[in-house]
Amino acid sequence: MSDAPYELYYWPQIQGRGELVRLALEEVGVGYVDVARQATEQGGGIDAIRRVLDDAKRGRHFAPPILVAGEITVSQTASILDFLATRHDVLLPDPASRHRALQLQLTFADFMSEVHDTHHPIATSAYYEEQKEEARKRTAAFLGTRLPKFCNYFEAVLRDNEASKRQHLVGAGFSYVDLSAFQVHSGLAYAFPKAFEAQRKSIPLLVDLRDRVAARPRVSAYLGSTRRVPFSEHGIFRHYPELDLTGGPRS
Amino acid sequence: MSDAPYELYYWPQIQGRGELVRLALEEVGVGYVDVARQATEQGGGIDAIRRVLDDAKRGRHFAPPILVAGEITVSQTASILDFLATRHDVLLPDPASRHRALQLQLTFADFMSEVHDTHHPIATSAYYEEQKEEARKRTAAFLGTRLPKFCNYFEAVLRDNEASKRQHLVGAGFSYVDLSAFQVHSGLAYAFPKAFEAQRKSIPLLVDLRDRVAARPRVSAYLGSTRRVPFSEHGIFRHYPELDLTGGPRS
Repeated sequence: MSDAPYELYYWPQIQGRGELVRLALEEVGVGYVDVARQATEQGGGIDAIRRVLDDAKRGRHFAPPILVAGEITVSQTASILDFLATRHDVLLPDPASRHRALQLQLTFADFMSEVHDTHHPIATSAYYEEQKEEARKRTAAFLGTRLPKFCNYFEAVLRDNEASKRQHLVGAGFSYVDLSAFQVHSGLAYAFPKAFEAQRKSIPLLVDLRDRVAARPRVSAYLGSTRRVPFSEHGIFRHYPELDLTGGPRS
Repeated sequence: MSDAPYELYYWPQIQGRGELVRLALEEVGVGYVDVARQATEQGGGIDAIRRVLDDAKRGRHFAPPILVAGEITVSQTASILDFLATRHDVLLPDPASRHRALQLQLTFADFMSEVHDTHHPIATSAYYEEQKEEARKRTAAFLGTRLPKFCNYFEAVLRDNEASKRQHLVGAGFSYVDLSAFQVHSGLAYAFPKAFEAQRKSIPLLVDLRDRVAARPRVSAYLGSTRRVPFSEHGIFRHYPELDLTGGPRS
């Protein structure tokens, strides 16, 4: 399909979990094709995702994002990031930190799943509007208990990481986990501006990390390009004003 | 604390996510201490988990299970299993299958999270009895759509895996992912006996895999021992008869 070393298969109109892979590929700076965002007549569109999902020769995969690197096909976001990190030092300079990075990445994955379930507590297959009352309850519990727990945890990890002078989550320098920290804290600020503002004062190191990641040359160029799909009410981080601060973080 | 090479820190009275690590350690056959199940005066109990969670020198961890191997501390179930697989060939004989195994393991993790949320759709911090009505709705969606989707996916992975003669999920032989398949399908049969019975005829290879794993000598010895915590209504797989088959799998 192209000379690019990587093909990414992910829903074309949302950031979703695939955004963590897009950010990693952008930071690496190698070419990649965001296949489903190509025109259907060029092999793109959602049908391209269905084809790779059902391809028994590629091992069958449960859900996008899916990364194809020649003969190798990898899915599940954290597995893709770990795979890319074994090939590109910029994503994880110290291989001895692999399981630490994976642990933190999986904790961000849990965090994102809980954010998703604030607007879909009953059924992923139904609309938000069909589960609004339950969403209100779940979001109150999330903002009251879980958001502060996750945020304070990652802030403590940063604070304790003296090897990086409190600048990075894993080891002495930048890693793909910092990209995920950027994405999650940008998403929280979009989805829950009031709750995030209330949380913000207790996570100064994380907010600083988010801003430093956004200023990295390749990330910054990406964020300013049309390749970055905007946040919207179709993704994981949705801004429904009626949900924001329904519970409010406990002080 | 002991001469065993591994210490596992996990809630002492439930199987939970930690059960996947217990099964792996049992299959490896090296000694391990299930620390929180030891008497408090011997350094066990829930306080032991709190101590290791908050230990900045061990890198801070978000939640159990936590595995300590000398100077190394690993958390997040899938990361622990990947770590153990790099040290013990029995858990993954072919290192080239690492990301395939990780992908399937993370898909089981997603499956288990959705099972958990059937009885806790609103707040992990509240009792089931406080969210029974929402649990009924979420379980109906889970049993109607998600359970068959996950089960049929793993059945297809087994069916396509001719390298193992359809006997194992990853590569040509046994791996830790088969242990997770055993645990998940045992748990489903416990929690949702009616729904699982209805699903059973479409997943003959998975049911056979579950039974073959249970018959492995070390697994079988473990399951017959007091080290195996029984299923209960405190874990992930809970049997609430009022939830079973509320939706029923779509044929």
